[in-house]
This record gives sequence, C-alpha cells and structure tokens, in this order.
Amino acid sequence: MERLESYVLGRWQPAAGELATVVDPTHETPLGQVGSHGIDFQAVLAYGREKGGPALRALTFAERGKLLAGIAAAIHEKRDELIDVSIQSGGTTRGDAKFDIDGAIGTLTYYAGLGEKLGSRTYLLDGDVVQLGRTPRFSGLHVRVPRRGVAVHVNAFNFPAWGMMEKAACALLAGMPVLEKPGTPTALLAWRIARLVIEKVKLPDGAFQVVIGSLGDTLDHMGPQDVLAFTGSSATGAKLRGHPNLVRHNVRVNVEADSLNAAVLAPDVDTGSETFGLFLNNVVTDMTQKTGQKCTAVRRILVPSDALNSVRDELVAALARIVVGDPADKLTRMGPLASKSQLDEVRAGIERFAQSGTLACGGSKPVHAKGYFVAPTLVVARDGREPAFHREEVFGPVAVLLPYSGDAREAAAIVNLGGGGLVCSAYSNDAAWSTTFALEVAPWHGRVWLASDKSAEQSLAPGMVLPQMVHGGPGRAGGGEELGAERGLAFYQQRTAIQGFQGHLQTL
Amino acid sequence: MERLESYVLGRWQPAAGELATVVDPTHETPLGQVGSHGIDFQAVLAYGREKGGPALRALTFAERGKLLAGIAAAIHEKRDELIDVSIQSGGTTRGDAKFDIDGAIGTLTYYAGLGEKLGSRTYLLDGDVVQLGRTPRFSGLHVRVPRRGVAVHVNAFNFPAWGMMEKAACALLAGMPVLEKPGTPTALLAWRIARLVIEKVKLPDGAFQVVIGSLGDTLDHMGPQDVLAFTGSSATGAKLRGHPNLVRHNVRVNVEADSLNAAVLAPDVDTGSETFGLFLNNVVTDMTQKTGQKCTAVRRILVPSDALNSVRDELVAALARIVVGDPADKLTRMGPLASKSQLDEVRAGIERFAQSGTLACGGSKPVHAKGYFVAPTLVVARDGREPAFHREEVFGPVAVLLPYSGDAREAAAIVNLGGGGLVCSAYSNDAAWSTTFALEVAPWHGRVWLASDKSAEQSLAPGMVLPQMVHGGPGRAGGGEELGAERGLAFYQQRTAIQGFQGHLQTL
Repeated sequence: MERLESYVLGRWQPAAGELATVVDPTHETPLGQVGSHGIDFQAVLAYGREKGGPALRALTFAERGKLLAGIAAAIHEKRDELIDVSIQSGGTTRGDAKFDIDGAIGTLTYYAGLGEKLGSRTYLLDGDVVQLGRTPRFSGLHVRVPRRGVAVHVNAFNFPAWGMMEKAACALLAGMPVLEKPGTPTALLAWRIARLVIEKVKLPDGAFQVVIGSLGDTLDHMGPQDVLAFTGSSATGAKLRGHPNLVRHNVRVNVEADSLNAAVLAPDVDTGSETFGLFLNNVVTDMTQKTGQKCTAVRRILVPSDALNSVRDELVAALARIVVGDPADKLTRMGPLASKSQLDEVRAGIERFAQSGTLACGGSKPVHAKGYFVAPTLVVARDGREPAFHREEVFGPVAVLLPYSGDAREAAAIVNLGGGGLVCSAYSNDAAWSTTFALEVAPWHGRVWLASDKSAEQSLAPGMVLPQMVHGGPGRAGGGEELGAERGLAFYQQRTAIQGFQGHLQTL
Repeated sequence: MERLESYVLGRWQPAAGELATVVDPTHETPLGQVGSHGIDFQAVLAYGREKGGPALRALTFAERGKLLAGIAAAIHEKRDELIDVSIQSGGTTRGDAKFDIDGAIGTLTYYAGLGEKLGSRTYLLDGDVVQLGRTPRFSGLHVRVPRRGVAVHVNAFNFPAWGMMEKAACALLAGMPVLEKPGTPTALLAWRIARLVIEKVKLPDGAFQVVIGSLGDTLDHMGPQDVLAFTGSSATGAKLRGHPNLVRHNVRVNVEADSLNAAVLAPDVDTGSETFGLFLNNVVTDMTQKTGQKCTAVRRILVPSDALNSVRDELVAALARIVVGDPADKLTRMGPLASKSQLDEVRAGIERFAQSGTLACGGSKPVHAKGYFVAPTLVVARDGREPAFHREEVFGPVAVLLPYSGDAREAAAIVNLGGGGLVCSAYSNDAAWSTTFALEVAPWHGRVWLASDKSAEQSLAPGMVLPQMVHGGPGRAGGGEELGAERGLAFYQQRTAIQGFQGHLQTL
C-alpha cells in the first residue's frame, strides 16, 4: 500500500507515525496511508515565510500569473490519470471528477489571466490618490501589499483539486506562500496534484508546501502576518476561529462552512416554460452531483403550496432515473459518499429528517452490499418553517421540499431561517418578484442566482463557483469570502494608507 | 451627584445597581455615577434590529447623510459647553477638547457628504456587471447591502466624542442601527453628546442606543447579522474576539488596539530643514496631545545613531516647555491622565522602561499633589532592538528614542518589531529612501505617513485620523480597519454576488 508524502522544507517526506488509511469508497479497499508525524511545523511555517515569501514578493503579478498557468498546464497534461484517481479514491463519477479537476484548471487559468492583466506591478493600488491638504500637494493613497506570512489552507475532502487550487491561486497571485492541508479521505488526488506541481512547475522554494495528514501544532506557531483559510464544518470552523493563539495574535481567519442552500420556485413560473425545466434540472444536478457533497448543493427547495405535489412528483421521477453505483461504470450517475463516517452521518441525518417530514423517495437504507452508497433522498415538509430543516446540513444527496405562499418576502424569510448561506437560487419571470426576493435574501447570502426565460439558455448552474464572483456567506456559512476576481486577493494583503507628497505617491 | 443615563428601548434609563463614579482627573472630585443594572440587553438588541434597522434601511444614503449632518450640527451648536465638559471630565486642555469634538464634527460632516454623493440609493454596487455566459445576457454583479443586525460599538475612554461618532457615522450611513458603549472614565461627555443626538436629531426609533456602564450579557445575545467594533487594549480585544458566542455565530468583530507607533528620521534630513522642524513639532505634539492617550501617539522615535544626542537634546528642550497642569488654565499645554488606574499603569510602564534605557526627561514621580498628572517622559535606548521597547504600549506622554544605522530597511525591521501598528511616520527628502521604507513597513501598518520638504508646509500631523484614509492595523493593533471613505461602510454590509439576466442586473 502506498504511503502518501508531504512536501515540506523543500523535500518529500513519507507518511510516518500513527497512520490513517485512505479507502476506495466504492469497494471499501485500502488505497494508501497518511500521516504527518515527525514534521516540525514551526520550521515549515518559518520556511514558507523566509524562503517562499520573499521570492514570491519579488515576482510581478504577471510572473506569478505564469506560475498559475504552469500549474494549470501540469494538471491538464495529466487530466485523464487524475480523473481515474478521483474516480477510484473519491468515488466520483467521471463527470464529477471532471467538475473538480476542470474547476481547478479553470480557476487557475482565470487567475493566471488576472495576473497578466495586473502586469508588472508587485502590489496593488486601492483607489485613487485623494487630496488631503489645502491643495493636492499633500495627498493620500491606499496600497494593498502581500502579507509577510504563510497562508495556511485547511481544505475540505469534497474538492481535493478545485478546493485546494482555488485558495492557492489567490494566495500565490497575491504574493503569499501557501501551506496546503488536503482533506484526508480524498488526499490521494491532492497528493498526485501536489507531485505534479512540485515536479513540473518552477515555483520558488518554500512557496508551495503540502501536509498530507494532520497539521499538528501549526496553529500554535502562526503569527500576525499569517492567515488561515478553512473549508469544512461549522463546528471545526468555530474551533479554528476561536483558537487561543490565533485570537491572541489577531491572525486573519476565513471560514467557509455549512450552508443550507435553497432553490426557490416563484408562483409565476409556468410548468411548460424553459425556466421550469431549468429549475428541475438544476435541482436534480445540485442534489446529486458529487453525491451531494458540494458546499453549494441544494438542501432546501421552496415551492408554492399549490404546486408542491406536482413538483414533488416531477423530482421523484427525475431522481428515480439517477443510477447509483460504481462510478467507473459509464451508466452510473451518482457514486458513493467519500467515506464511512460521511455515510454514517448522512444516514443519521436522513433519519432525523424523516421524523419531521414525509419521505418522498430515497431513505437511509443501504443501496449496495459494498461501498458507501446512499439513495437520492427527498423529504417533504408539512410546514415550510419547520425548524429541523433550517438548522442542519446533511452533506449528501438529500433535500427537503418546503411549501410557501408564493410571496417573495415570505420565501426570503423562510430561506433566511437557514442562518446564512453560500448561494440561493430563484426561478421567476417576474422581475419585481426577483428583485424583492434577491434584496431580502442578500444580507444572509454570499451569492444569489436568478433564473428567468431571458437567460435560462445561457445560465450556468447555481452550484457552480465562478472565480469572477465572491464565494462565501455570513453566519452559519462561516462569515468568509473567497474569489470574486481581485477581491479574492484582499485576504492575503494588508491594505495600507500612505500619506505624503502627491508627486511621490504618484510613483507608487 | 448626577446619575448618568443610558438611552435604550426608546427611553432614558438612569444609572442603577452597583454604581461606578466618574471623577474629574484634575481635582479628583466626583462628577457623576454610572451603572447599567436592570437593562434587558437582549431586548435592546432586538429593539435595534426590529425598529432601528428597517427604518434606516428604508432611507437613502442622502437621507442617512442628512441625519449625520444633523448630529454634527447638534454637537456644533453646543460646542463650547461640550468643550467645558471635556476639560472637566476628561482632563483635556481646550486644544485637546477641540481635537476630540471637532474630530467628531469633521468625521460626521465628511460622511454626511459621502451620503449626499451616494444619493438616492439604499445599498451599494461593488464593481461592474461582468459577463458570465457565452454572451453578456447571463452576467454577474456584486452589491453591498446593510446587515440586518445591530452594530455594537465598544468605545475607548480617550475620544468620547470622536471615537463614538467615527464608528456611528459609518454604521448609520451603511444602514445599521448602533448600540454605543462609551468608555466609563469619560462617559460624561459621551452622555451629553448622546442627549443632544436624541433631543435634536430626528433619528429613527431604535437607530441610536447608548449604554453608559457595562454591556452586561449583550455579547451572549449577538447573532450572525450583528457586528462588534471595539477600540481599546489588545487584551480586551482578544477576549472579545474569542468570546464563545461570537465565535459560534461567526459574528464580525473589528478590533483597534495597542500600537507602538513609530516616527523615523532619515539620515538625509538637514537639521536646518523644514522637514526636521516638522519632525520635532510632530513628535512633541504626538507625545503630549491628549496627554499621550491617543491610539496614534508616537511611542518610538528612530534616529540615526550619530544624530541621537542632538535630537535627544532638542526633544528634551521642547518637552521642558510643555506646561503640565490644570487644563482649565490657558497656559497649560498638557492635562492629567483620564483616571487613577491609567496613572498607575503609566507610572509602572515608565519604571519598566527606565530599567531598559536611560531617562532623558520626565519619569514616574508625581507632578502635582492632586490630580492624575505625569510628566512628558523620554527614554533613550542603548540598542534599537531592545525588546522591552517593542512589546508594550505605555498609554501616556511617554516615548523612547531608538538608534539605528540610517538604512531604510533596518529602520523598517526595527519598526516592524512592534508587531503591527496603526501609523508609522517617516521624515526624508530622499524619495528612494521613503519608498523603500514605506513598502517595507506597509504590511505591518494600517497607515504610513511620509514627510518631506515638498509637502511639509501642508501636511497634517501623522496622529490625525482622517475619514478619507483607513484607520486600523494588523497584529498587535487588532487586525481591524475603519474609515477610509466608502471602505468604512463595508464592515456594516454584506457583499453579495448576484447572477442573472443582464437586463435585470442593470436595474439594481
């Protein structure tokens, strides 16, 4: 069995100490061993700060962008092999594997392009020179300079490629070295990608370190110029954010956590319309893609009361067509969950949901004799405001159908019971309805996605995270923010006001 | 003796329960009693969220700006009375009192103007519409909408007027109701101002609440849409930031804390130049204004080794001319510290500093028989990197003179030992020296202030916080950010990406 390696202090270090086993979730066979025992994490942080940081900061945005393009190319070159690794180690269908890997390539390529656009600068200007004195002679200007620490990225297991590269792209382009920690269940793919990055891309020494396994006492050694970005559960997010050393040193922490993403059908939508078809397709995709292990997956579906039964029947019929099985099989539309513990949690979640509503399809029963499979599951709520459906994210192909009156404000009030989400989608051809709804849910969401017949044919699914748009959400979703073009760099930069002679400021 | 009142739930509530006494720091005579016992803080937050929030959000930026202009006018109308209250209750000289009160008026007026400029909108757009689909038909846009909670402001005692109004101006303009908690030692002035605001300005009910005294269990009742902004010590800042309820709900927290602000003299500056004169003047002002109780006060003065003795002599001579005494006396240039506990802390700090360096003037000895007075104190360090001078802020008229080689990078390295600051100033006519220094200290500072002969005549002192420029700093300084024109509103807003039909986005 393979021992996965970490890449720290400029060298590969095989798993050591107490080892965890990475398992093929389809066949429940062991694939590799993971462990970070023996790594001196204080030295790893110092290495990033002292070697990687200065080297990255000396590069221009265009040069950093080229490095990102190099990473994208290295991944693209081995795309087929990586897809196979994803199918085997993540239980992803070929489509799911492409979604993750192409997501990584796309995001890297986008930020490579942004680097090219930002050109020969090494730091950013933030706004214009503003007059402060009696005349413009004494003025002020804001700059955004790279922070002098290490960006520690604690990634989720669900997107070993995209999740890691989305964070790394922003940090590296901003000029900060990274320390990546992939989620353990799917670490095999992250490790293969890390090997490509180290072998094929001429990154500065110390700019890209990867720990496969536990981060040990890393958090105890982080300082005021380091940053921590985490994607995962709210509970772990809170533990990290409240870590005494991070609190003491005001270390910046970005959390992207649970999100009970909602899809809302407005009362004006004709069942024969393009928008209605899009609604059904998107809901089924966002429930079942990656076996529902997607931070932007649909968890709540709001439908006007009088349309509830017909929508339920349509969804049940569509979900029945989802073939659940070995992801290596071409007919399979949905693979297993990524790990045994995820399976246990999803099953328990379905059982709790079934107590508060009516199971329309799926359930917690085993699907196959082997593998961490669960059936696409739809629960129908009696009352749209039933608290059980607004406080718990079941991280699998599980959603609840909630009735509401059809009123945009009522829909928003129900959606907002989720306590903060990453994305909320609405389907309406009534612009006034859409605007009211969007502005009512906006304070509680990082992203609002609006469908109508006018854009249905071109629109990308709401579950798709685009580098141009911010990703993150308030409250339960972690209170963080990533991506959003140049906005995604700000977390890795210090914004500093500079005041002085106008002629001098203009040379910055 | 007066009982100070809180203004909560739409009514005045006199101090009750265990009372603290507010004392005139010059004569050590009691002025009033403070206490917030009996206030239902959960209800206060709910009142802000349910009454103040919706009413403020319904107003346009221009209308909110008019409210700020109204507050500025109400303060201005009673400026002379307020100055007297400041002198008596804060121990401020007339100049110091004006600095605080006019700072409040100026900041309110600036944000009133920004509101007028933002006009008839009720929320902000953030960047342009960007194409996401094959054609611009499917596009994305970012908006910044007011958060649906209460902005809780824990203000410092040193700027009862400016500090409170700087935070309130940004929150109210963004569309969030505030709950202000002034620092207790100088709460008399904050209370008088709050009375003017409530009596003279037609603010929506619930938009402006003030608690004079402890915040009780407020933090336990804050939710994901509330925000907390704090100005004060690093230790209290860390306690607030790590508060379990705030961590659990991902409540946004902004901290502005300790800062060992440095002033650096470059080796090129001629002692006869305008820049050298400005250096001496600014250092003396930023040491002694508000008796050194200013978050932007100069704590460290870096001077090339060969100029150390002459600069020391000049500063000692200038500090000797600072008359310390009753601030009501026109000849007085520096009043007492604000409270007995501040006096004790500053004296202890001076004694610790004296052990690591040489006292050039001042010291911890009592200045007058009555009152919380301390002498302007200058300590000379043997070694510029002596750790004692880079880890502790003594919050009084106390600074240390540190030798360095004259090299810009060495100066920056020494300054950065402070672990993160609010502002750093440098005096040089060598543009290359200034740029190198500015970019080296920028990651560790919220603001860098550069003097040269070219702007000396017009420049405002580095200790002056301007609404156009961000205020805050990384690390020890709290990791927060305030003001900076429109930037100051972002903390009170949720940035949300909206994706949909281009024609629809253009109507937002």
